[in-house]
Amino acid sequence: MSFTSYMDLALAEARAAALRGEVPVGAVIVAPGGRVVARAGNRTRELRDPTAHAEILALRAACAALGSERLPGHDLYVTLEPCPMCASALAQARIARIYYGAADPKSGGVAQGPRIFSHPQSHHVPEVYDDIAARESEEMLRAFFAGLRGGDAEK
Amino acid sequence: MSFTSYMDLALAEARAAALRGEVPVGAVIVAPGGRVVARAGNRTRELRDPTAHAEILALRAACAALGSERLPGHDLYVTLEPCPMCASALAQARIARIYYGAADPKSGGVAQGPRIFSHPQSHHVPEVYDDIAARESEEMLRAFFAGLRGGDAEK
Repeated sequence: MSFTSYMDLALAEARAAALRGEVPVGAVIVAPGGRVVARAGNRTRELRDPTAHAEILALRAACAALGSERLPGHDLYVTLEPCPMCASALAQARIARIYYGAADPKSGGVAQGPRIFSHPQSHHVPEVYDDIAARESEEMLRAFFAGLRGGDAEK
Repeated sequence: MSFTSYMDLALAEARAAALRGEVPVGAVIVAPGGRVVARAGNRTRELRDPTAHAEILALRAACAALGSERLPGHDLYVTLEPCPMCASALAQARIARIYYGAADPKSGGVAQGPRIFSHPQSHHVPEVYDDIAARESEEMLRAFFAGLRGGDAEK
């Protein structure tokens, strides 16, 4: 599969999240050989868990499947720039590469704000590739928040 | 209970973590009225989950108990400065106050490195009180890592 196919899977997870009333963000984790080992969408509201972002759910599922708290050589595809919590978790899990879609100036932690990977406290620095299928991701987020008409579904 | 008593509970969780072979960090969450609603120690190795830091486990337990992804008015006591992942999760949960023990120059994310709460991407900024029972916490961490004699139990 190509990296656009993996991002398509992440976008499908984001769409499914929107249908559940969650902020539409989706993530996929791919093993070194190319196999998808975990996929997840945001479930913070359903699980009433502020840590249940798509990236964290995918990370925990992949670690559980592999029986390891580290995922060297694994790649993460996510439709939105990871927040600081997720970026730090991904570094601690030793994820090799992060491919993300839309930038998140409001809540992102990779290319803005705390820029998690730019400090020596990040003991591992994944390769980062941005702007992948960003338009689809942005459009989904925009439609979701427009549909809320003043609701409070801040991610 | 006083804040030193809450930190004593967190230190007890840290000691229990060390006995399980985990990096000794403990955390306690206290509701506005003073009741302890969650307590946890680090379990990253046991659970094979890089997100299973004491703060995240306590946060998830408190949110589950309250049926809410936010904990306004709640305080967190933790024996070591939170890492960037935990600091960001605590802000997203709207924790009111963080009391922590030892500083963590190597992996901390509150007073050093990404300084999570100092950026506009942190939509909530808890009050932070540091250096509480720091010596006990440091001594426990030092003894734990000395006991490893070259092992790899990096938090």
